[in-house]
Amino acid sequence: MPLKEGDPVVVWIDTKRVYLIKLDKEKRLDTDKGVIFHKDLIGLEYGSSITLSTGVKAYLLKPTIHDLYSKGLKRPSQVLYPKDIGYILISAGIGQISKVVEAGTGSGFLTIALALSSNAKIYTYDIREDMLKVARFNARILGVEDRIVFKLKDIREGVDEKDVDAVFLDMPDPWNAIPKVYESLVPSAALIVFVPTINQIEKTYFAMKNSGIIDIHVEEIILREYQVKENAVRPKNVGIMHTGFIIRGRKSI
Amino acid sequence: MPLKEGDPVVVWIDTKRVYLIKLDKEKRLDTDKGVIFHKDLIGLEYGSSITLSTGVKAYLLKPTIHDLYSKGLKRPSQVLYPKDIGYILISAGIGQISKVVEAGTGSGFLTIALALSSNAKIYTYDIREDMLKVARFNARILGVEDRIVFKLKDIREGVDEKDVDAVFLDMPDPWNAIPKVYESLVPSAALIVFVPTINQIEKTYFAMKNSGIIDIHVEEIILREYQVKENAVRPKNVGIMHTGFIIRGRKSI
Amino acid sequence: MPLKEGDPVVVWIDTKRVYLIKLDKEKRLDTDKGVIFHKDLIGLEYGSSITLSTGVKAYLLKPTIHDLYSKGLKRPSQVLYPKDIGYILISAGIGQISKVVEAGTGSGFLTIALALSSNAKIYTYDIREDMLKVARFNARILGVEDRIVFKLKDIREGVDEKDVDAVFLDMPDPWNAIPKVYESLVPSAALIVFVPTINQIEKTYFAMKNSGIIDIHVEEIILREYQVKENAVRPKNVGIMHTGFIIRGRKSI
Amino acid sequence: MPLKEGDPVVVWIDTKRVYLIKLDKEKRLDTDKGVIFHKDLIGLEYGSSITLSTGVKAYLLKPTIHDLYSKGLKRPSQVLYPKDIGYILISAGIGQISKVVEAGTGSGFLTIALALSSNAKIYTYDIREDMLKVARFNARILGVEDRIVFKLKDIREGVDEKDVDAVFLDMPDPWNAIPKVYESLVPSAALIVFVPTINQIEKTYFAMKNSGIIDIHVEEIILREYQVKENAVRPKNVGIMHTGFIIRGRKSI
Repeated sequence: MPLKEGDPVVVWIDTKRVYLIKLDKEKRLDTDKGVIFHKDLIGLEYGSSITLSTGVKAYLLKPTIHDLYSKGLKRPSQVLYPKDIGYILISAGIGQISKVVEAGTGSGFLTIALALSSNAKIYTYDIREDMLKVARFNARILGVEDRIVFKLKDIREGVDEKDVDAVFLDMPDPWNAIPKVYESLVPSAALIVFVPTINQIEKTYFAMKNSGIIDIHVEEIILREYQVKENAVRPKNVGIMHTGFIIRGRKSI
Repeated sequence: MPLKEGDPVVVWIDTKRVYLIKLDKEKRLDTDKGVIFHKDLIGLEYGSSITLSTGVKAYLLKPTIHDLYSKGLKRPSQVLYPKDIGYILISAGIGQISKVVEAGTGSGFLTIALALSSNAKIYTYDIREDMLKVARFNARILGVEDRIVFKLKDIREGVDEKDVDAVFLDMPDPWNAIPKVYESLVPSAALIVFVPTINQIEKTYFAMKNSGIIDIHVEEIILREYQVKENAVRPKNVGIMHTGFIIRGRKSI
Repeated sequence: MPLKEGDPVVVWIDTKRVYLIKLDKEKRLDTDKGVIFHKDLIGLEYGSSITLSTGVKAYLLKPTIHDLYSKGLKRPSQVLYPKDIGYILISAGIGQISKVVEAGTGSGFLTIALALSSNAKIYTYDIREDMLKVARFNARILGVEDRIVFKLKDIREGVDEKDVDAVFLDMPDPWNAIPKVYESLVPSAALIVFVPTINQIEKTYFAMKNSGIIDIHVEEIILREYQVKENAVRPKNVGIMHTGFIIRGRKSI
Repeated sequence: MPLKEGDPVVVWIDTKRVYLIKLDKEKRLDTDKGVIFHKDLIGLEYGSSITLSTGVKAYLLKPTIHDLYSKGLKRPSQVLYPKDIGYILISAGIGQISKVVEAGTGSGFLTIALALSSNAKIYTYDIREDMLKVARFNARILGVEDRIVFKLKDIREGVDEKDVDAVFLDMPDPWNAIPKVYESLVPSAALIVFVPTINQIEKTYFAMKNSGIIDIHVEEIILREYQVKENAVRPKNVGIMHTGFIIRGRKSI
């Protein structure tokens, strides 16, 4: 299918030069390897490439969740990483869910990942209007804006939605939202919480347990990258050692 | 929605007593906490519980990928773990794919995870008929058998499908399948390989690179479980240190 | 130097059959590969081997800290692992210390490691007489009993020694010992604490900081074992994920 | 004992401002928190502090191996980290060894650690004169120069020393040195090899095995640092993911 106005495209030059754009025939992408006019990409296919003025090739790829981290999206707040998102999605039963609630929205990376990976309608709560704006901007680039309801509301005051298939919390004090979140969940549905510090684990765990959540697990996902050169494979020397802890369980009644 | 004959159900008693069953009014589940007759579960809801003869509660949950590892499915071959599956799914662009090819099938855990997490049609190749039988048995329990095409064929001899949205390889010598797999992929689509040893990394990486796969990453996902007791949170002492390495990239043309 | 009565010897048959003995011409070592009479080892050298009745070789090695974990020593309490001991020793300035205080003694593995690795006199405190007995038994096998003073005393009530070159604490509530331990330390000397749970980290850290300890670091040492077969190198599948956290700092005045 | 001319001193201002100096009454140390004239430190004690012109305190500490990594030593080549050094030292039987051979010298960090942590005489081989010069410079600061013999020689051509208690190799092709190194070792003594890539593991392992080394282990030491704030403890976000693999074994005859 040829690319058309409005399509999201990853422009991949090399590992360090990855750009996520939404095709707009009025716009251009400036890179240190050459300029790309969006209009020149219209009509091409995902997977094809163009040659820049420097002779370097730029490949056009269909965005996956990994590409959210390339240049193009805004991230004023800390974002979840793919290693965490993948695990969260399968814990939520991605593919079998139709209504999801999430708080806080932040830069919207998980929101977008949920939208890209499922057919669910996503209700995302944040108390900061500027964050909702950023998330909306990001969702628009990926073309999933209409799948998401952005709500300027403190989830600790209650969840408006009923019969929710999964709730995801990424906020400083999830334990204050858990009792109300529990009410909104369909029985057996997953509640998944992400916290950066260890101190938050215990409070979250017991708030979940005391609310009637069962099968609670506290886990951390660590990703190790390897560098491959001929006859010289090894883990990369420096990397992300920690993002946060995932606490997951399911509602019992 | 009340549970009915043929539905997959997780019977969760505690962390060590988790059973995955397919409701069959003729059958019973024996546990050391009491017997459960399937017919007594029909008409109940996911999330609800029954009390066993020993006074212990058994909760009925809707299966997620984590539950594949409970008692119920067969696993004669080594299986991928949820930590790996989650990452593989988002790397494949789960939610945006409609045709997936996989080899080898093995016990079918990834096959089932792909079916549960997407609307895609899955073509799974294995050279062992006994494995395909096991995988089919497992898929039937989860109710996704009709979404999967089980093929007794050596993928190194070619992929029958065209315009495939993602290919996943978990086999001893993926490099021997990569050139043919490349042909079957839609441009920009993901090729994802899982290998247990380090020696396989280099060969796979260069086979991918030489076939026209770009944006290649070699990664390992490590999961650390935490034990929570009041005032005593710590990583669990013993656990899975290693399953395998994930090598992922995308087709360029 | 030929082995003589009383010498500590590691009898190494294979990775799973490693025995630590103290030569006693009246004694025998029974293994499933054959019997070894200690008297037959007297006069041999470290590094040499004898052939057992089953035709298998048993090598005689000079014990290092790794060998403490073989069959021979008693370990009724949890013990520190070599990965932690190595790091603790260099943090303590091993090789430059002459007086060390330690609590609690436990099975005496760190005590013995300190004795084997330095010329220091070691004062080890425990409130359990049975543990001191175990530790003394273990120290005797390694021939370092006379380098250690075993004290049945609660270190929280005070440290008898003055001008101590390093203190090591492995006890449930190190924060209750830290102010008194601080007094016993020579300025600039290291205080090193080992705790298994995360909840203990914060209390220990601030107790150290408030006592005048500087350069405080909280660290965890993780060891990953690799399995080597021809053309198949990989991390071992299962292993020790966690022992404890090391909190180290130095006394300022 | 009051500090005197020539003593090594760690000037510790905060975690990011740590300086290793050798007292020289003609010299000064410039920091962004103020100037320190060495002569003002003479007569003070380890553990004491002076107040800089900015009002900030600078503590004077006795160097441990951790301090080698502060500002002061030269490191033109990659260096081993304390996490690795601690483990290597106990594997070598530090405290029970009197003659050690090492290659290559590099910046001399392990050489110095061996000298600081034991009474052993250390013979260090390198084929680069500039490296030996750097290592000698570093050793001089720590005051251990006379315990080390710096040898401009390719260890693959043979080891001059006999009855060596431990050999440590950190070079690109250790397998080419292992047969000759084996000859120099006292029976039961440890051979320890450090390699950065996985490809080197297999060759080293089999070279050791084929030379008569037993009890071979391949291990990796990973250090995780924790950040402590009140009510907010967590692993640090970014850190060293990999330095190298340690392969250790002992000579059998």
